[in-house]
Amino acid sequence: MIALFTDFGLNGPYTGQMKAVLQRLAPGVPVVDLFADAPSRDPRRAAYLLAAYGAWFPAGSVLLAVVDPGVGGARAPLVIEADGRFYVGPDNGLFELVRRRARSARVMEVTWRPEALSASFHGRDLFAPVAALLARGESLEAEPRPEDFGRRPDWPDDLAEIVYIDHYGNALTGMRAAVLAADAVLVAGGRPIPPARTFSAVPPGAAFWYENSNGLAEIAVNLGRADRALGLEIGCRVEVDK
Amino acid sequence: MIALFTDFGLNGPYTGQMKAVLQRLAPGVPVVDLFADAPSRDPRRAAYLLAAYGAWFPAGSVLLAVVDPGVGGARAPLVIEADGRFYVGPDNGLFELVRRRARSARVMEVTWRPEALSASFHGRDLFAPVAALLARGESLEAEPRPEDFGRRPDWPDDLAEIVYIDHYGNALTGMRAAVLAADAVLVAGGRPIPPARTFSAVPPGAAFWYENSNGLAEIAVNLGRADRALGLEIGCRVEVDK
Amino acid sequence: MIALFTDFGLNGPYTGQMKAVLQRLAPGVPVVDLFADAPSRDPRRAAYLLAAYGAWFPAGSVLLAVVDPGVGGARAPLVIEADGRFYVGPDNGLFELVRRRARSARVMEVTWRPEALSASFHGRDLFAPVAALLARGESLEAEPRPEDFGRRPDWPDDLAEIVYIDHYGNALTGMRAAVLAADAVLVAGGRPIPPARTFSAVPPGAAFWYENSNGLAEIAVNLGRADRALGLEIGCRVEVDK
Repeated sequence: MIALFTDFGLNGPYTGQMKAVLQRLAPGVPVVDLFADAPSRDPRRAAYLLAAYGAWFPAGSVLLAVVDPGVGGARAPLVIEADGRFYVGPDNGLFELVRRRARSARVMEVTWRPEALSASFHGRDLFAPVAALLARGESLEAEPRPEDFGRRPDWPDDLAEIVYIDHYGNALTGMRAAVLAADAVLVAGGRPIPPARTFSAVPPGAAFWYENSNGLAEIAVNLGRADRALGLEIGCRVEVDK
Repeated sequence: MIALFTDFGLNGPYTGQMKAVLQRLAPGVPVVDLFADAPSRDPRRAAYLLAAYGAWFPAGSVLLAVVDPGVGGARAPLVIEADGRFYVGPDNGLFELVRRRARSARVMEVTWRPEALSASFHGRDLFAPVAALLARGESLEAEPRPEDFGRRPDWPDDLAEIVYIDHYGNALTGMRAAVLAADAVLVAGGRPIPPARTFSAVPPGAAFWYENSNGLAEIAVNLGRADRALGLEIGCRVEVDK
Repeated sequence: MIALFTDFGLNGPYTGQMKAVLQRLAPGVPVVDLFADAPSRDPRRAAYLLAAYGAWFPAGSVLLAVVDPGVGGARAPLVIEADGRFYVGPDNGLFELVRRRARSARVMEVTWRPEALSASFHGRDLFAPVAALLARGESLEAEPRPEDFGRRPDWPDDLAEIVYIDHYGNALTGMRAAVLAADAVLVAGGRPIPPARTFSAVPPGAAFWYENSNGLAEIAVNLGRADRALGLEIGCRVEVDK
């Protein structure tokens, strides 16, 4: 299976053209949209989201991850093999947390180039063909790189910020719930936010945080929108008050 | 075929993870997105939409329907077999109109539980595996329930409200056109809205209602947006003036 | 492969129902979403987008293209065979630029009608079944039409307007970059916009135009949104200052 993690949007031509390439080069391999609205042009915040959601996929899956503001510039195309999953995308920190949390990870720089490579759409022209090859189990023109290649040692293990606002207005933090005390109170948008196990455990309109279904600490409002109620957006700081 | 009817949105991780489960457990079964933007957290209004659009699918189809504000709480997971179609989702009224309009309907409460069940994402962890099983024609751990289990007898047969605003700004009511007189005038947003057969039958900018392609009375403005022109949103009352 | 080019949106019921028809009538044929947000009800501007993006697909592909404000009225359903690709949709100018730029093009008016044809959703009831038939290589009830049938000779070869705003806020013009001088300066939103090869070639916040990955001249702002920074929307005029 190939899962797409991008900031391309679904409506426009980008996701569709990438899928057309995948269908042509890896016919019959299922393709699912994981995120098409990862933090736009923001590989750092996207990295925390990708690490949390990529790990949900079974070994053998290919995560085609393109948040690539430097497209056309000098950053290398990478394949990371982490705990049996393959991650394909640009070397801009997007895979930092995947690599840091993996029990084992291998890094390869893709040296293959397509005959026609646009300056602005490597997702379609370069990364999708590589993902198709990996999904078919074929060999790849790539060079192994050392473990510290392209690392971002200064990025924290968990990011105390909002990294995503979902369709309901829930605000996902870049922090794994497992690193927080079960009774930790978060502070965001100037308001203390206590924990709860589930939506129906709090009154309508009440804000709470909980461990979401992929292990991140997520801020929500029962039957409301946390983003509007608390004034949250991607990049807002979250404090942990224990 | 499995059709998805949810309030999850397409962009985020929810629809994609549900599809990944379906691909894994029912490989080769086509999955289509019917609605990913059903009335958010609003099973009552969603129920009128589901009844109108679910009936369009051929017998044997599986409708995976998740509008589930009570996720993690006590509501039961249901399978409804109605006129040969299977509906899977939470017991919160979402299937009331499907059941009421079916020539024959069978109700089962799903007793199977997955090994890992998150508190907030039963769409992925519980309902999708059940839908996959049904699509493959396999047997299910479920208990039959009486015909009146979970019914909402107080809900009307047709809902005189806006239940959906589409991509063009057209406003779908919860009323079947067949229950209205062909020359009925609707009143919404304080304005009388006469019937027309099609967009090109009225002048640009004119508001009208028509029987949409799934049998609902729908309010539109030729070459305009009815939602903005008439100030309509989900939940607005519609009156029928004959 | 069938590629969808519509103004239907992805979330609502329209794209999903069309895909359900395609799955039923052409099982196993891959379907990709090229545009679901083509210029709404605007076949003229959509025509420039379709010509640029349709040509990217290999011969044998079917482009199911429905931007159809006149649905239910008198316009004919067409199949255009252009350079080995099949385009299916309404006769309202949507295929003008595809036809004009093709080395060879054949025009057929579809005379087949489905048993049940709604007044408002020919995408599902008429065009999708025709696309499925074409994708399966089956014969079609259709009449050849002369080369000048439904042409729009008064439309320009390249449209000096914004025809699409993408997910990043980039503004696509209806002009092929190949018809512009490499050092042409565009003027849009009252501002001169110089060319650049790629995003990383200009400072953050700077506006530039470039040849996008499908050959159109596109206006962008590095790490910003051109639509907001320059006040651009679909229909805005673009001047070429050489």
